[in-house]
Amino acid sequence: MERHFDQELEDLKGQLLLMGGRSEAIVQKSVEALRRRDAALAREVFDDDKAIDRLEIAIDERCVGLLALHQPLAGDLRFITAALKISNDLERVGDHGVNIAGSALRLAALPELKPLVDIPRMTQMASGMLRDALDAFVRRDAATARRLCRRDDEVDDVNRQLFRELVSYMIEDPATITRAMELILVARNLERVADLATNIAEEVVFIAEARIIKHHAEDEASGVTVDDDDFGRA
Amino acid sequence: MERHFDQELEDLKGQLLLMGGRSEAIVQKSVEALRRRDAALAREVFDDDKAIDRLEIAIDERCVGLLALHQPLAGDLRFITAALKISNDLERVGDHGVNIAGSALRLAALPELKPLVDIPRMTQMASGMLRDALDAFVRRDAATARRLCRRDDEVDDVNRQLFRELVSYMIEDPATITRAMELILVARNLERVADLATNIAEEVVFIAEARIIKHHAEDEASGVTVDDDDFGRA
Repeated sequence: MERHFDQELEDLKGQLLLMGGRSEAIVQKSVEALRRRDAALAREVFDDDKAIDRLEIAIDERCVGLLALHQPLAGDLRFITAALKISNDLERVGDHGVNIAGSALRLAALPELKPLVDIPRMTQMASGMLRDALDAFVRRDAATARRLCRRDDEVDDVNRQLFRELVSYMIEDPATITRAMELILVARNLERVADLATNIAEEVVFIAEARIIKHHAEDEASGVTVDDDDFGRA
Repeated sequence: MERHFDQELEDLKGQLLLMGGRSEAIVQKSVEALRRRDAALAREVFDDDKAIDRLEIAIDERCVGLLALHQPLAGDLRFITAALKISNDLERVGDHGVNIAGSALRLAALPELKPLVDIPRMTQMASGMLRDALDAFVRRDAATARRLCRRDDEVDDVNRQLFRELVSYMIEDPATITRAMELILVARNLERVADLATNIAEEVVFIAEARIIKHHAEDEASGVTVDDDDFGRA
């Protein structure tokens, strides 16, 4: 029995929001496990990631099904192709959560290096970006999405600052090397989560405005506008 | 003037192969710059990456255009949705090349730590995987793609081994910390390139067999088969 297209599209949106929420939660849980030095909590992250992987498959199948059955055009077509890319991005957020949980497990077995300050801060920044990107996606809100792209630079700044601090720890006391290395890798994973949120925000702008801001194309050619009537050019 | 669908599909394939070749080349060039301590060569990588970014946009536009104008079904539909994901993966390969080039630039200004052996070896492994994944994609050769997924483990092994070696360098002589850190990050970028090649191989299996092997779905449910006639299930 064929369901109504609009209902299918709403279901797709719901699945993406669910996947977004799970992705945000996995990052927070992995850092919480790191902060509390809680190996059991870190291990939960591996199952959470499997659930996210299954959501990606379900979303991709729904997208292919929607394209095959309803052959949507214009805005809806862009929405569905963006959904395929966003599910890919969210799946990677899950992988970063797993990487962080791995570091949390290894660090839980070693003495504490120092209380974590910058890493929880980066986590709030990155997961906030993820939440706002998904929010902007639901509301097709290009203005919010555009602002979000700029927040990525702030996360990069904290990452660079933390990197320098941890390298100076290592130089002063080689006994800290293994632990400082793990924290550098955690920070790098969080920075990648912020990058992925930025990717999603770019897709939102694409959906809302049919304008590709990826790769700063705008800077080069004052905006590559994809006109709905002009999809078939050679 | 509307062009023939098969011709458009061939053009899409050609663009993806071109993008694949550029992605492979950028990884090799960035590591060559690292090996030869050649800052000028490292800087070339930044322009090469911009060309790859433009190819992603061109490929995505062509995919959306094909879906809008021709409303393809079954194998062709899967091929086009896979192309959207593959262009995303290749764009990230370019980003990893840029990261490696950044390390090459910073290391060119410092004394040499040691002659590179494992990193060029990882580069050959990762770029070989990328080439074979794209090859398998053109020939819709699922058997090759399946074998490729296993090679990812070998790259992970070299990465882990190199990580341990470099950490022991740092512990023995803190003066090596900054340089050893850079090499750890380079290796991690190469490991991610191998992961992306694996993603592409998984898409090839999906195209060829309409069977999702992502996330080892097979292990859990002996294969999630997507039937062409069954796309619209609720």
